[in-house]
Amino acid sequence: MNKKSLKPIIWDDEKKELILIDQRKLPNKLEYFICKTYEDVAYAIKEMVVRGAPAIGVSASYGMALAEIKNEDILNAYNTLKNTRPTAVNLFWALDRCLTAYKNGRSILEEAKKIHKEDIETCKNIGIIGEKLIDDGDTILTHCNAGALATSAYGTALSVIRFAFYNGKRIKVIADETRPRLQGAKLTAFELNYEGIPVKVITDNTAGFLMQKGEIDKIIVGADRILADGTVYNKIGTYSLAVLSKYHEIPFYVAAPLSTFDLTSKEEDVIIEERDEKEVAYIDGVKIIPEGVGCYNYAFDKTPPDLITAIITEKGIVKPSKDEILKLFNK
Amino acid sequence: MNKKSLKPIIWDDEKKELILIDQRKLPNKLEYFICKTYEDVAYAIKEMVVRGAPAIGVSASYGMALAEIKNEDILNAYNTLKNTRPTAVNLFWALDRCLTAYKNGRSILEEAKKIHKEDIETCKNIGIIGEKLIDDGDTILTHCNAGALATSAYGTALSVIRFAFYNGKRIKVIADETRPRLQGAKLTAFELNYEGIPVKVITDNTAGFLMQKGEIDKIIVGADRILADGTVYNKIGTYSLAVLSKYHEIPFYVAAPLSTFDLTSKEEDVIIEERDEKEVAYIDGVKIIPEGVGCYNYAFDKTPPDLITAIITEKGIVKPSKDEILKLFNK
Repeated sequence: MNKKSLKPIIWDDEKKELILIDQRKLPNKLEYFICKTYEDVAYAIKEMVVRGAPAIGVSASYGMALAEIKNEDILNAYNTLKNTRPTAVNLFWALDRCLTAYKNGRSILEEAKKIHKEDIETCKNIGIIGEKLIDDGDTILTHCNAGALATSAYGTALSVIRFAFYNGKRIKVIADETRPRLQGAKLTAFELNYEGIPVKVITDNTAGFLMQKGEIDKIIVGADRILADGTVYNKIGTYSLAVLSKYHEIPFYVAAPLSTFDLTSKEEDVIIEERDEKEVAYIDGVKIIPEGVGCYNYAFDKTPPDLITAIITEKGIVKPSKDEILKLFNK
Repeated sequence: MNKKSLKPIIWDDEKKELILIDQRKLPNKLEYFICKTYEDVAYAIKEMVVRGAPAIGVSASYGMALAEIKNEDILNAYNTLKNTRPTAVNLFWALDRCLTAYKNGRSILEEAKKIHKEDIETCKNIGIIGEKLIDDGDTILTHCNAGALATSAYGTALSVIRFAFYNGKRIKVIADETRPRLQGAKLTAFELNYEGIPVKVITDNTAGFLMQKGEIDKIIVGADRILADGTVYNKIGTYSLAVLSKYHEIPFYVAAPLSTFDLTSKEEDVIIEERDEKEVAYIDGVKIIPEGVGCYNYAFDKTPPDLITAIITEKGIVKPSKDEILKLFNK
C-alpha cells in the first residue's frame, strides 16, 4: 500500500475500540471518531461519520464485534446496525457474515478482522484489474467518493485510478462535487490530492459540458448495490452521468467488490434512501433555500445495465448481464 | 401585473438613481443596491447584484443614462458596461440601442425607460403565449432563475409558469438549485413561493432521477444568447438537462425575448464566461474544496438545436431552426 494512503477504519486491538476518520470534518480537519459500543458505530453510519458501501460493511462488522466483547445481545446489535441505512447492500452482507460466524460459535471479532483484511485485498485487486482499462493521458470523471475513504484502503473507482497512477500513466481526474453532501469536493479531491494525483473539482452541472467539449475520456464510479441483471444503485447523480456518457459515447465503468452484488433482490425490493431535507437546504450550516420551501433529497439513484460499459470487480471485468455476473460468483 | 410580483429594477426619476434588488442577499434578506453612477451599474452587473440576461440589458441602459445625466463620456460608459460580462447578448443589444439613440441626438434616459417598459411587455407576452404549452397538472422542471428577478417583471421561463398558474392550471415547479451560485434555490424558489406557486428544490444531481421516475412533464429554461440556427447558450447545466430530456422524451422549451437572439455570431464567436474558481470552492463563505485543489467554473454551456423542442418568444413559438427564427424577425 502507498505509504501516504489514508486509512479510514482502524481497529485498536488493545483498547478494543474502532477508530474512524470523521468524514464530516474533511477536508478542513482530519479528526477521528472513536466507537466504544455498537451504538456508537450505528450512529457513525447513520450520521455519515463513515460512508461508502464497503466502509459501512467493515465498520458494521466491528460494531457486532463490540457487542460480542461487551457481552451484549447480538441480535439486538445486528438489528440496530441493519437499520442505519437502507440502500448499500454491503452493510447487510457484512452483518450476515458476522451473525453466521456467531451462530457457528466463531468469534465475531475475528470475522470482522477477516472482512476488513479481505476488503483491503479486494480493493487492491479491483485497482490492479481495472487499471488496464485506463490509457496514458486519460482524463477520468468520477462521482461522489468511491475511494480509500469509502473502503478500508485504495477504494473501488479510485483504486482503478490509483493503480493507473502508480503504474506511471499520466492521468487527470475530474471530481464532481456531488451535492448535497459534497463528497466529491470534500473527500475525493482530498484523498487524491493527498497522494499527489492530479484532480480538479467541478459542479455537478459541468459534467455534461466537459463531455460535449471532448474533455472526458472515461467515467468511473462506485456502487452501493448491484442487482443480478447489472442494475446499479449508486449516489444520486450517477444515473444522469450514465445517460450523458451514452449520449457522448464515453465508456462508463462501475467498480465494486462482489459484496456489493445483491443476487436475490429485484428492483422493487430496493429502497432508495430519502434523507433529511436539511442536507439540501443547508450547506455547512448556511441555509440556501427560502423559508417555507421544501426539497427532495434522494441519496441514491438507479442506473440500468444498458448504460453501463462494464463492471470492474476483484474477480474480473464483466459486462452488466446476468450471465456474466453469475459466472463471477462461480469462480 | 400580479400585485405581489417582485420588481428587481426600479428607476427613481426624482433622485435619478437606479435601485436594484441585491440578489446576492436573497433569499434571506430583501435589500436594495443603489446605483448613482454608471460605474455602480457596471459593478452591480459584474458582481451579480443583478443577473439574468434581460435584467442585465435593462440595468446597463440605465447605466448609460446615468453617464448622460452626469455629462460623462458616453463611449467610456458604453465600453465599461460592455466589458462586465461576455455571454448574455441582451447586454450588447441594450447598450447599442442606447448608443444609437445618443448618436441620433435622442435622450438615453428615455431610451432606457423604453427598453425597460418593453421588457415588461415582452415578458408578459412570453408568458401569455407560452402558457398554452402547459397542461393542467403538469410538473415543470426549471433551471437557474429565468424569473422576474432575471428581467423587469414576470421573467421568461417563469413567466410561462406564472401565466399557467394565473390561468388556474394546477402546476408544480421543481427548481434545480443550480450550482455554483444557487440561483434556483435562492431566487427561483424565493420568487415562486412569494407568489404562492408550488415549488420544491432539488440538487442538480436529482433531475435525471426524477425524469426516470416519470415525475417531470416539461422542462422550461431561459437563455443568455440564441444563435440564428437555434443554438442556445444558458446557465451551466442546461445542456445536461437537454440531453436528459431527449433521452426521456420530455419536451424541452427555451423561453426568451427576441433581444436574446444573436443573428450574426457563429459558435466560435461566443465566449463562454469562466468565472472565479472561488464561486465553486466557497459556498456562502465556507470553503468546500481542499487546499491546493483547483476547479473549473464555466458559467454557461451550449445546447444544440436538436435537443430543443421549441423556443417561446414574445412573437410566438418556433422550432429551433434558421428559417423559423428569421421569420420571427420579419413579423
